[in-house]
Amino acid sequence: MHPEVVAKAESARNAAAVLAGVSTGAKNKALRLIAAALKAQQKKIIEANARDLERYRGSPGYSEALYDRLLLNEERITAAADGLIEIAALEDPIGEVTGMKLRPNGLQVGQMRVPLGVVGIIYEARPNVTVDAAGLTLKSGNAVILRGGSEAVHSNICLVGIIQEQLRKADLPAAAVQLIEDTDRSAARTLMRLNGSVDLLIPRGGPSLIKTVVENATVPVIQTGAGNCHLYIDEGAVPEMAVEIAVNAKVQRPGVCNAIETLLVHEAAAKEILPPALSKLDQAGVELRGCPRTVSYHRAVKEAGEDDWGNEYLDLILAVKVVDSMDEAITHINRYGTMHSEAIVTADYHRARLFLSRVDAAAVYVNASTRFTDGGEFGLGAEMGISTQKLHVRGPMGLKALTSLKYIIYGSGQVR
Amino acid sequence: MHPEVVAKAESARNAAAVLAGVSTGAKNKALRLIAAALKAQQKKIIEANARDLERYRGSPGYSEALYDRLLLNEERITAAADGLIEIAALEDPIGEVTGMKLRPNGLQVGQMRVPLGVVGIIYEARPNVTVDAAGLTLKSGNAVILRGGSEAVHSNICLVGIIQEQLRKADLPAAAVQLIEDTDRSAARTLMRLNGSVDLLIPRGGPSLIKTVVENATVPVIQTGAGNCHLYIDEGAVPEMAVEIAVNAKVQRPGVCNAIETLLVHEAAAKEILPPALSKLDQAGVELRGCPRTVSYHRAVKEAGEDDWGNEYLDLILAVKVVDSMDEAITHINRYGTMHSEAIVTADYHRARLFLSRVDAAAVYVNASTRFTDGGEFGLGAEMGISTQKLHVRGPMGLKALTSLKYIIYGSGQVR
Repeated sequence: MHPEVVAKAESARNAAAVLAGVSTGAKNKALRLIAAALKAQQKKIIEANARDLERYRGSPGYSEALYDRLLLNEERITAAADGLIEIAALEDPIGEVTGMKLRPNGLQVGQMRVPLGVVGIIYEARPNVTVDAAGLTLKSGNAVILRGGSEAVHSNICLVGIIQEQLRKADLPAAAVQLIEDTDRSAARTLMRLNGSVDLLIPRGGPSLIKTVVENATVPVIQTGAGNCHLYIDEGAVPEMAVEIAVNAKVQRPGVCNAIETLLVHEAAAKEILPPALSKLDQAGVELRGCPRTVSYHRAVKEAGEDDWGNEYLDLILAVKVVDSMDEAITHINRYGTMHSEAIVTADYHRARLFLSRVDAAAVYVNASTRFTDGGEFGLGAEMGISTQKLHVRGPMGLKALTSLKYIIYGSGQVR
Repeated sequence: MHPEVVAKAESARNAAAVLAGVSTGAKNKALRLIAAALKAQQKKIIEANARDLERYRGSPGYSEALYDRLLLNEERITAAADGLIEIAALEDPIGEVTGMKLRPNGLQVGQMRVPLGVVGIIYEARPNVTVDAAGLTLKSGNAVILRGGSEAVHSNICLVGIIQEQLRKADLPAAAVQLIEDTDRSAARTLMRLNGSVDLLIPRGGPSLIKTVVENATVPVIQTGAGNCHLYIDEGAVPEMAVEIAVNAKVQRPGVCNAIETLLVHEAAAKEILPPALSKLDQAGVELRGCPRTVSYHRAVKEAGEDDWGNEYLDLILAVKVVDSMDEAITHINRYGTMHSEAIVTADYHRARLFLSRVDAAAVYVNASTRFTDGGEFGLGAEMGISTQKLHVRGPMGLKALTSLKYIIYGSGQVR
């Protein structure tokens, strides 16, 4: 067990016990203080970030995309600070009592919404996750243990320092937001195995990070982010709507988890829809990999291999398949999908209902782009990632996903 | 990977896809058919059980308590069958849509309650768990993979055979209820690591079984059952009520998880409450282990060691401690408790509220015995065990605990 992590988890647990009883007003005040301090201390943050950027520039696995994710500038710091002000404006989920019922023996039994306790987050690169995660956990009454990537360590130390300073100013325990500064694997491994100290661990990052956490953690985990999403265009779909949604779901932001990776088209719709759809996708720079029937509709389509159906490209690449029925589409989706976001374009009432009930995913759409799977778009406010498992929560994780329900029972001396 | 388990999980997954869309009426019909068949085939079940009992009688670690848990007789089979009829009468949680809201862009976003999919259960001895678990998972639209103990293998094979036969008769997939017949550890280990095939694994049994599952599983797990529960008697509590609840919570059924293991008494209440309480507990055959102050109140009290505070005796033994304040009691509970069931006896409004909000447990009581933590007592109907973790569900797990919410979105061509 890594001593820094064990000690920080212990003090996080004590902070969580305090935070669970703190009023909404006090939490909001702290969020606003942190937001103001982040804006006021931009220069310091940018300097710390510059050290990370400089070190990263000379690293062997350099990628421009990762450099961009690592970068903090005035605009991004302001956006992160404004995010905290938005979180302060969200309804506090803690303390609500629901379902209070009188039992035949006179006991009153209900459920109270409470924080989870200590939430661990293991993430990569983007230092603004540090601010978002601290804000969401603080508002929901949880302590958080942050374990960011080694690339962002100076940025994260600076950000958490500012956050802790403002927590103290707001008379809240600074240990409610903690950073594991040692970016060695052994620190992360300890965090994954602190049963009794860590109530939830959320990995945010690429498939290998998520796999490592799922395979090694003994504390409860929520898997996030893997998105092999599909759009199915049904027989009789309105062609313009189908083409527009297909292009939007692939092209608008191909690098994110709610973009589609495969387009499925009913064979009766293929003749009308595939030529304009493939043509627009090709014009937008999308590499097209199709089944043999798809290949015949556009010269730009290369033949897809079996690997393509299970691949989350996160890039301007799209697999395309003509199917004989909606059944075949649903079977394909439930086999290759990652239970993230799935959509149908249809004009048929019965098939819309069937698709909604039979597709097993966090978010199932009728006649809309999968790109809407997002806490803000769903009306939850900010989010802590998108769950792709079924236990506890599916889809965007807002404040409520960081809480649980305990039973409270009022009696007058009842015994069994 | 154990081939029997992999194959059964694969067919369970297919059965789950069918079961998710089956009507409440069809599920209830199957439950009633199974109940009738269990009653009609009692002789066959008792014969199979006799083989288990006979083999167990000659085993080296023989215990009478385990022999009793293993035993099936006419009364117990009838009770298990009646349990299925009660499950049939419960409201079906599947399909309910909640929180449907119209977003500013015209999207309608809501949540639909859906089955988890494939639930695995690893349990010991009691073959009636086989029937309960099959009933609860079937009603909630889930497939189940049962892995019972080696002691009960003949009973379990017989019970699952009857259940599958009736599923077929009801035109439901027989693979919805499966038993892993190989009771070797390697079979259980495979079940723990079938990510993508098993959506939830529930260990039901002693601490070592639960520990093994938590440490080895990579699929989502719900921890159940550990119950180091406390009763705190506050300054000013009504003495008769306090004594009655203390005796009931310890004595009525000491071997179950919601019985108390430690009694905490405010020092201002000790003089009035401890002498009669300790005396009644002593008369009921309870071994008393107390702090130095407690020892002075009754000759039967032996001095407790540090080990006693963290011990779940599951027996007629009680640790007793005099505390200086409710704060001390709450700190003790949150330190040594297992987040199961905790109670206060008080006449003070403010302290009742504080105890309810500050004690971190699945069920927190004011003026009632902890023995009520149970699905039936809380109005959930039958239960799948009692969760002692915070993720997904706390306390008794009824039908709803075997479901999750997926987002459904109705659009009219929205793109981002």
